[in-house]
Amino acid sequence: MKEIISSVGKLNHIAIAVPSIQIASDMWKKALGANISAPQILTDHGVKVIFVEAPNTKVELLEPLNENSPISRFLEKNPNGGMHHICYEVKNLKSASKKLEAVGARILGDGLPKIGAHGNPVIFLNPKDFSGTLIELEEIE
Amino acid sequence: MKEIISSVGKLNHIAIAVPSIQIASDMWKKALGANISAPQILTDHGVKVIFVEAPNTKVELLEPLNENSPISRFLEKNPNGGMHHICYEVKNLKSASKKLEAVGARILGDGLPKIGAHGNPVIFLNPKDFSGTLIELEEIE
Repeated sequence: MKEIISSVGKLNHIAIAVPSIQIASDMWKKALGANISAPQILTDHGVKVIFVEAPNTKVELLEPLNENSPISRFLEKNPNGGMHHICYEVKNLKSASKKLEAVGARILGDGLPKIGAHGNPVIFLNPKDFSGTLIELEEIE
Repeated sequence: MKEIISSVGKLNHIAIAVPSIQIASDMWKKALGANISAPQILTDHGVKVIFVEAPNTKVELLEPLNENSPISRFLEKNPNGGMHHICYEVKNLKSASKKLEAVGARILGDGLPKIGAHGNPVIFLNPKDFSGTLIELEEIE
């Protein structure tokens, strides 16, 4: 019997930065028949967000609200848009952080959790430690 | 009551191109406690693959087998690695293709399904029509 030990939980979302969530979500809806949420303005994070629902997870389309948005900087490098990060759920961010530290995986910023776009504590991991992929960990009890 | 009409199915995987699946999967395992599959060599697709399992979907780490691999070309532009595509399941690729065509979303190559890495028919959609994201549709009955 195969034993599965996993401390990361569900893949909560894949975030995609786009120049226009109107154009992007229209295409996801019309071409793929995806169910789209109403747009939300997250002023603190400098983004407008729409969720593209799939039965098991979701795509989060992000459009910058202004030039200071972290998404604006990403779009300068990727003008058409592109995949920005993936987010895993964890039960306990403190123990997840200890594990990361123990193996030398770096947390971005000061290493302490911030309140994320969905109101839960989150950390972002240095993409250099994960082969170029930006990973968010979100504490979901 | 909210009615959900969706023709795309589950998000089957997120594919991430990496210079070394050994290094990448070690980090996913050690730092995140993720469950990792045994590596598979897919000669026809020019890639070595490892699956990083999450309870609801999976990350597919792709390492090129040689210089002719499509993943090699991606890594030339993104030497550290990066997110390559996302894959949605569909029940019927023929009807999905008709819908795409009707709204002007382009299928890469000759527009006809190919046999994908998991033995099922797949198509890839032009990232220009989806705000820079490469989307694979995989027929899963």
